[in-house]
Amino acid sequence: MNDAEFLAALRDLVGANHVHSDPADLEPVLADWWDIAHGGAVAAVYPGSTAEVAAVMRLCAQLGRTVVPQGGNTGLCRGATPQPGGRGIVLGLRRMTALREIDTPSNIVVAEAGLPLAALHDALAEHGRRLPLHLGSEGSAQLGGLISTNAGGTGALRYGPMRDMVAGIEVVLPDGRVLTDLDALRKNNTGYDLKHLFIGAEGTLGIVTAAAFRIHPALRSSAHAWLAVDALDDAVRLLVSLQERFDTAIQAVELLSADQVDLVLRYIPRSRLPLDTMPKWSLMIELGASDPTAPLQAALEDWLASAFEEGLIADAFLAQNQTQAADIWHVRHGVSDANKQHGRSLSHDVAVRPARLPQMIARCSDAVTAAYPQARILIVSHIGDGNVHFIAHFAHDDWAAVPDQSATVKHVMGMVHDIVTNLGGTFSAEHGIGRKLAGELAQRADPARLTIMRGIKDHLDPQRLMNPGAIFPA
Amino acid sequence: MNDAEFLAALRDLVGANHVHSDPADLEPVLADWWDIAHGGAVAAVYPGSTAEVAAVMRLCAQLGRTVVPQGGNTGLCRGATPQPGGRGIVLGLRRMTALREIDTPSNIVVAEAGLPLAALHDALAEHGRRLPLHLGSEGSAQLGGLISTNAGGTGALRYGPMRDMVAGIEVVLPDGRVLTDLDALRKNNTGYDLKHLFIGAEGTLGIVTAAAFRIHPALRSSAHAWLAVDALDDAVRLLVSLQERFDTAIQAVELLSADQVDLVLRYIPRSRLPLDTMPKWSLMIELGASDPTAPLQAALEDWLASAFEEGLIADAFLAQNQTQAADIWHVRHGVSDANKQHGRSLSHDVAVRPARLPQMIARCSDAVTAAYPQARILIVSHIGDGNVHFIAHFAHDDWAAVPDQSATVKHVMGMVHDIVTNLGGTFSAEHGIGRKLAGELAQRADPARLTIMRGIKDHLDPQRLMNPGAIFPA
Repeated sequence: MNDAEFLAALRDLVGANHVHSDPADLEPVLADWWDIAHGGAVAAVYPGSTAEVAAVMRLCAQLGRTVVPQGGNTGLCRGATPQPGGRGIVLGLRRMTALREIDTPSNIVVAEAGLPLAALHDALAEHGRRLPLHLGSEGSAQLGGLISTNAGGTGALRYGPMRDMVAGIEVVLPDGRVLTDLDALRKNNTGYDLKHLFIGAEGTLGIVTAAAFRIHPALRSSAHAWLAVDALDDAVRLLVSLQERFDTAIQAVELLSADQVDLVLRYIPRSRLPLDTMPKWSLMIELGASDPTAPLQAALEDWLASAFEEGLIADAFLAQNQTQAADIWHVRHGVSDANKQHGRSLSHDVAVRPARLPQMIARCSDAVTAAYPQARILIVSHIGDGNVHFIAHFAHDDWAAVPDQSATVKHVMGMVHDIVTNLGGTFSAEHGIGRKLAGELAQRADPARLTIMRGIKDHLDPQRLMNPGAIFPA
Repeated sequence: MNDAEFLAALRDLVGANHVHSDPADLEPVLADWWDIAHGGAVAAVYPGSTAEVAAVMRLCAQLGRTVVPQGGNTGLCRGATPQPGGRGIVLGLRRMTALREIDTPSNIVVAEAGLPLAALHDALAEHGRRLPLHLGSEGSAQLGGLISTNAGGTGALRYGPMRDMVAGIEVVLPDGRVLTDLDALRKNNTGYDLKHLFIGAEGTLGIVTAAAFRIHPALRSSAHAWLAVDALDDAVRLLVSLQERFDTAIQAVELLSADQVDLVLRYIPRSRLPLDTMPKWSLMIELGASDPTAPLQAALEDWLASAFEEGLIADAFLAQNQTQAADIWHVRHGVSDANKQHGRSLSHDVAVRPARLPQMIARCSDAVTAAYPQARILIVSHIGDGNVHFIAHFAHDDWAAVPDQSATVKHVMGMVHDIVTNLGGTFSAEHGIGRKLAGELAQRADPARLTIMRGIKDHLDPQRLMNPGAIFPA
């Protein structure tokens, strides 16, 4: 079947309006979020139902056409960008946005994969509920993509990544069969738990079309603080002390280095430092509870007093109202934008156990600055879960002067990933593998693990049509 | 190789003292916890290290001998009892009890699979930490078995089952390869998450030899209550209200029917009812927090007052000290023993979403009592996670008078499982499949799911040597 016949068959299945093959329509779909990678496809296809997804998958399996699933296209590792020269399809679920069910007594919501995360947040708020997944791209990132990349964010310290929130999925397999598990039971021990294979599989095993999520009651009391800390070891000690006292009341603990805060203050409107001097390390804390009578503000003040006494904090700002709290988080959320304006960031999404974090940051900083004295090291860390965005940042002029940019990117990445993996850490904490890190995975992962992954892939997708090049090198 | 040569080879690998082939030694190993099933094996083998486990697995793979892993042998579905006439081995890890690491700043503990759960509890308590998994058999149940059966218990409402506590595993594959993932990172998105395949796989894919667990700070404040409730619908309303107010401060919510409480009071020493009259439904609540200043007792009292006002509670007892709290849970923990003394329990480990629980219990009770008027329905429910132990109980004399006991067991099970699955529930919530329910699974599960499970099994265990008869019918 030639391309024209293939397109006609696709139009028969989902309707002519939902098969985009014009180069102008295709262009944004074929580029990644950074606009670094550009791939090829015959069409972008937007089915309107699980049955239509299944029909499209059957057709592609019959014809040996590749399928690249794409959600909001906000991924950072090129997992949703087809291979250059690809002659298959990009499959999007933006028409599948139904909230199939909100079961508030059971604390379960069932939603379709094309719904953006922010839209789900809004819908749940009307029912006094929330899904505690928060990340920068939540306005456009879709649930299906967030599941397929096992999204992390600031709440993972307390609630885990997306994997921990998914109670069940509906997935269309590469051959068009539909696997449905939306009963969303908290306990169900009837054989292997298959949903965890598809969560974080980056669309290499099938298409997630809907999911059931465990939801939580809305927060009705909170407390927010910005702590000035002199040494990273103290930041870890504070984290431990905070967890021992507040455990599950902790909603977020974020760490920024002084240079990072400095860049945000320079570039982001309405950003301000609520302390007298720039701290070496900034620790931002949010506590929250569903009980409106929980005395979190007083308890946090009490804890801060004891931390001062122990000499762990140089200075601290305890927000007295929601505006002051929002000011703290406004600085945290300004990071990406500020860095983009100032220069080129070589960003590494790494993680180690929290206890090893000071050592990891020190070693990586020393190695990179020794090789590239013009680089500024910026640290943005979800410290509570050990995840560090380790950024070697070059001002625009400095980056332009780098002789071989591509080799520099690889050189820095190799240094950072070597140090992190030697400390028992991971070179991809929350962003996934995609096409960007498929080579790293092939090189660094345990061969036994890769063999099993490949065996599962071959069992479910024997023709290797699903998202080729992602996770496994093409 | 004949049996004698096989035994000699095993002795070479693990030492003569650790290969038991005498019938007297083997007998307890070859019977299940209920002493209903009796299987066959050439030996029980107790390796002392992961390397020895791997050597034993390689030998068995070479010779085509089956391997049945067995932990504390407390499972309720005959998952650790070999097939009758089996000529392979039972493999136990009771010599592998090391606590390899306690990383309190990172809240991670790494322990070997042969360690009993209670021993881990004791060790963690010394470090001000806890693993919130609690079940009746914790004195003898071993970590490896608890992982392989994805154990549930009373804390699952708040912390999930065992699956949610495991941060990484070390597993020996059927061919002797060792897959190690004990870095225990909260975020790690580097390919498929394989550990979830082995958790709950009941030893059909490999032997879990060690695991990393996420641990929590010790509880330093708590509140306990026993509520008298007239209707099941009210019990669900109370659960919802409790969750909206206290969310993660809830440690347990258990439900018992009047007949069940009555049996405990009759048979269990020192058991007492702290209310004036026997309630139709008893709801037992535990709140807990790591913050020693959290005012849980006052908050629970406040919540109880509003529940009274809404007419949801007939009576309530709020424990004023640890002794009164222990009295409440003493009644809950006396259930199994009391029922065993009074007669024969046909127990069903089912679950539906909490909102559907009243309907499920009513329908099952009606169906069973219509067919067997002499049966007394006993309800023991982890209501917060929708898990009900639905027990059709026959007094010893009544059971002795049943003409075909085996057919009765099957008949009741069929009725209960039909109703539960029609309500979107599961016929095995926390006890697993083992050999007891392998036929039910083959009959009731989605064929697409079974095909994928079988494909994974065949990829990892192509000779089908691992725990044959468990999960998949022999």
